[in-house]
Amino acid sequence: MSDNVLGAAEMEARLRVAPFSRWMDLRVTALDEQGVEVGLTWRDEMISNPTARITHGGVLAALIDAAADFAIAAKIGRPVPTVDLRIDYHRPAAPGDLRARATIVRLGSTMAVAEAEIFDADGRMVASGRGTYFTGDGGS
Amino acid sequence: MSDNVLGAAEMEARLRVAPFSRWMDLRVTALDEQGVEVGLTWRDEMISNPTARITHGGVLAALIDAAADFAIAAKIGRPVPTVDLRIDYHRPAAPGDLRARATIVRLGSTMAVAEAEIFDADGRMVASGRGTYFTGDGGS
Amino acid sequence: MSDNVLGAAEMEARLRVAPFSRWMDLRVTALDEQGVEVGLTWRDEMISNPTARITHGGVLAALIDAAADFAIAAKIGRPVPTVDLRIDYHRPAAPGDLRARATIVRLGSTMAVAEAEIFDADGRMVASGRGTYFTGDGGS
Amino acid sequence: MSDNVLGAAEMEARLRVAPFSRWMDLRVTALDEQGVEVGLTWRDEMISNPTARITHGGVLAALIDAAADFAIAAKIGRPVPTVDLRIDYHRPAAPGDLRARATIVRLGSTMAVAEAEIFDADGRMVASGRGTYFTGDGGS
Repeated sequence: MSDNVLGAAEMEARLRVAPFSRWMDLRVTALDEQGVEVGLTWRDEMISNPTARITHGGVLAALIDAAADFAIAAKIGRPVPTVDLRIDYHRPAAPGDLRARATIVRLGSTMAVAEAEIFDADGRMVASGRGTYFTGDGGS
Repeated sequence: MSDNVLGAAEMEARLRVAPFSRWMDLRVTALDEQGVEVGLTWRDEMISNPTARITHGGVLAALIDAAADFAIAAKIGRPVPTVDLRIDYHRPAAPGDLRARATIVRLGSTMAVAEAEIFDADGRMVASGRGTYFTGDGGS
Repeated sequence: MSDNVLGAAEMEARLRVAPFSRWMDLRVTALDEQGVEVGLTWRDEMISNPTARITHGGVLAALIDAAADFAIAAKIGRPVPTVDLRIDYHRPAAPGDLRARATIVRLGSTMAVAEAEIFDADGRMVASGRGTYFTGDGGS
Repeated sequence: MSDNVLGAAEMEARLRVAPFSRWMDLRVTALDEQGVEVGLTWRDEMISNPTARITHGGVLAALIDAAADFAIAAKIGRPVPTVDLRIDYHRPAAPGDLRARATIVRLGSTMAVAEAEIFDADGRMVASGRGTYFTGDGGS
């Protein structure tokens, strides 16, 4: 795999340009040649079921998408459009900050696949998934 | 397919119990025996790329999940846990309210699959996808 | 959606160039502007579980992929590489010929999405799914 | 993760009960507490495109499904029904034997997720993917 061309601070700056990423308060908490770790600050509006107080699956999907995208951005210098996204929900996510660890599965000149796992504050994996990204020029 | 056991008003009431659904301002705009239509009111925080002003893919994923889930809820009387979710992104979604139309693919006593398409204000499909839901009792 | 540029006979000829398609004995049984129908002749080697005599999920995946690909080929004149494939298994498929109906979800100049449903001899849907295909030039 | 309850020989015997697994000549080539490795013997009928001589994506899907299923079987003592399957195709697979390495992502009492990567004879990853499996009793 090629070397990183973006550092953690530069990546976080690009990430937080997106209003929805700022709403989720995404932060780049770790970055190495194998992947990136993105933290999310939990907020009340993220709740799906108010009785069980479970975090909405759409928020988890957004976090996996953002982390997987930035694992690719670390290598090619820019975020790339998501072609499709697949999320598996493993456990209800209780209120609390979340952390996603993303790695590249395959980086090609036209298409890339990256995957991410989300952990709660107790280190339990609550969701995982992968996205396909378009790394070529032009688009659809 | 069995008859609906939830009406549109009752469904919307249940949908809006979820804070994240209220944040997206989800509304049940149509309901018939074939499926359900859910509207989303766009807001600035939903933007991914502030230059291109594209709606974040995580918001689209949340809308597809909610609509697909409620297509099942119409038949069995309650929303059900999402097992997994797959989203295809077809076009950038410009700022503006969105509408999702969801239908059931297969309703079983343990598992169900439902799908949804999202349209922008001009009627163009911007994303589509499907979810697998657990319709049994208990679960992990 | 654009008009078909391949007819059923020409499509079947191209389909059967593939040895694995001939092994499944795939036939184009219907073709219209909305999509294509592909039939499969069942054979003993397709069984997964010999006690329950259920058709292997990999065979169903291959049929969905082939049918979805040819729904696109009808419009652009050639089969295209599969980027990714998602299959939902709805019911065990008993021994017997199968029929897949495929339609295009979105046809772009770089990426396309098509979906298919598989029915058994009694008309019951046993599996469904969709694939993402690369319609651009070059590749990864 | 719980200990393995099936050994490699017992697993291979169960795997080869399936006629389609025998057609692919699947063999358990490695088994440890982290996962299972399954080998496939290539054959001419597996070709998709006879000019490029690429292995059919349906065969790769079947291998990923079988390997992921047996990663779960190692832990719970029996193969389990596939709920859904997601495959990413990374590179054309040239003629030649293939090897899949599968690991469990999440093993629950009702649902499990396992993933697998397929490598060609040169050790290049040609496809990867994951499946959702039903580990509960009964089913739909």
